[in-house]
Amino acid sequence: MKEFELIEKYFAGRGPQRKDVVLGVGDDAALTRIPDDMLLVVATDTMVENVHFFKDAPARSIGHKCLAVNLSDFAAMGAEPAWASVAITLPNADEEWVKEFSEGLFEIAEYYHVQIIGGDTTQGPLSVTVSLKGFVREDKALVRSGAKSGDWIYVTGQLGDSALTVASKLQQVEVNEANAILSERKFNFPSARIAAGQVIKHVATSAIDISDGLVQDLGHILKASNVSAKIDIDKLPISPSVLASVDEDKAIELALMGGEDYELIFTVPEEQKAYISQNATAMGVGFHCIGQIQGAGEGICLMKNGEKVPLPNQAGFEHFTVK
Amino acid sequence: MKEFELIEKYFAGRGPQRKDVVLGVGDDAALTRIPDDMLLVVATDTMVENVHFFKDAPARSIGHKCLAVNLSDFAAMGAEPAWASVAITLPNADEEWVKEFSEGLFEIAEYYHVQIIGGDTTQGPLSVTVSLKGFVREDKALVRSGAKSGDWIYVTGQLGDSALTVASKLQQVEVNEANAILSERKFNFPSARIAAGQVIKHVATSAIDISDGLVQDLGHILKASNVSAKIDIDKLPISPSVLASVDEDKAIELALMGGEDYELIFTVPEEQKAYISQNATAMGVGFHCIGQIQGAGEGICLMKNGEKVPLPNQAGFEHFTVK
Repeated sequence: MKEFELIEKYFAGRGPQRKDVVLGVGDDAALTRIPDDMLLVVATDTMVENVHFFKDAPARSIGHKCLAVNLSDFAAMGAEPAWASVAITLPNADEEWVKEFSEGLFEIAEYYHVQIIGGDTTQGPLSVTVSLKGFVREDKALVRSGAKSGDWIYVTGQLGDSALTVASKLQQVEVNEANAILSERKFNFPSARIAAGQVIKHVATSAIDISDGLVQDLGHILKASNVSAKIDIDKLPISPSVLASVDEDKAIELALMGGEDYELIFTVPEEQKAYISQNATAMGVGFHCIGQIQGAGEGICLMKNGEKVPLPNQAGFEHFTVK
Repeated sequence: MKEFELIEKYFAGRGPQRKDVVLGVGDDAALTRIPDDMLLVVATDTMVENVHFFKDAPARSIGHKCLAVNLSDFAAMGAEPAWASVAITLPNADEEWVKEFSEGLFEIAEYYHVQIIGGDTTQGPLSVTVSLKGFVREDKALVRSGAKSGDWIYVTGQLGDSALTVASKLQQVEVNEANAILSERKFNFPSARIAAGQVIKHVATSAIDISDGLVQDLGHILKASNVSAKIDIDKLPISPSVLASVDEDKAIELALMGGEDYELIFTVPEEQKAYISQNATAMGVGFHCIGQIQGAGEGICLMKNGEKVPLPNQAGFEHFTVK
């Protein structure tokens, strides 16, 4: 089957058809309408085989995840997703793969009402780049740079499942079947905290999603806001699958350093803590206060039973550490 | 050198800084402002090593071309480019490569006043995906579907240089050094016909850029507009380098079937022919009338000295032709 036919069969006309799309797939470029009082929001992420997913990763998961990771960026901006361009590079025109991939993609696209408005299909080593577009009111956009000393630090959901899955696949830890299924589900089909983003955009002073690990991503907020943080290890919402599979120190390491949880870290001033609790249901996910922003200075200070403890050694996920 | 440092060094703060960018590189997503009466335009293209460029392609050319091919889509829509997301996948953190790539990218970005607002850098087999954003007035967007019987068919620039370069690199033809330099320059550093797009958007009934070859791309207009076309071979603006390097039949084949010329094909009603000639200077490139749109039916009819001749055999560039 040729490229055009393959795209036609599994992509053309599928998924949400939004009223603000004037011209979708099929011309030189797509045309869409942005509400007058809104800013355009753009996030772009690439996923590469053997780097972001394992060689045996289900195509359905790759379809889901390539959109989910961008939706997660939108959640962290308090933004509403609308349209996505999907560029797929495939070693061969494997119809079964494209079918499964498209099902994973359109399932999450339906859920968040995102229309696929274009992209590209090329031959080459497996990778997918999604560029997600949408909008946000200028005064509601959540950035990394607004955290203030005294703000409380929150995190949504549970931590460590993706890191546990990776450690298990690399045979660094042994995980029983039940826990492996639970943690792998989160690794393969992460949720994007769009609803939470829509709640916290009214009160949070900063936000970021956890793609490279809590310590590293919170570090981006601290740097951009020129502040430091105190984190209480006892308050970390470590996933039960992680706690059941490894010892306490390893569980803390996975929760703090493990990437790809796609939960939100956000900061809230004292006077807005009540707003967050009152809107707990609308958040669409549980959340925990794990620490507090401090003045300029020392990065992250980890506390356990009221005592300062060192950060785990392992660095957050980063490409190109060896040259 | 680590990923973040490499990006920081060669990308942060470089190139045009547009007033309509509220938040550029460095947060979870970028934020930009769209003029109230404009539609958002989005084009996305991926380039993969050994598919879209040769293994020995200069990094500077890849930086130029990954933006140029998207700009070419914008030209064909009559759209104004504004912002680009650039996702680069690299086998290793080769600083020299990134430096050269960034120089090619920012040179063309400067020329067309495009700000790089984000993207991704990942490790893996070499490829680049650019998603270009910009705007167009709704009533001025050029699409593929408006060609009418009787409209004249134009093409900008000259044809066949990229196909000649590819044929030469694959050792299918022999090209002397002077012609090789000229045609390779066009292959490595294609222009985008943005200025021409801004002129023709006022009068053209359809447009497309030549990425897969004149016959194949004109075919997209014919299909979308439900019309056919008569093309006069004698009027094709075949590149002098091509004419000097191969025999006439081969030159015609390269001009009709060769991809990556990134010239515009557009259709103009009889009563607007004068407008095009009067605005020749503003087009920023030469152009030729090569034929005429006919009624629904037979695809492309090739004419030579008033006689109908068959299409060359070789199909336009398409991925995945063998399964």
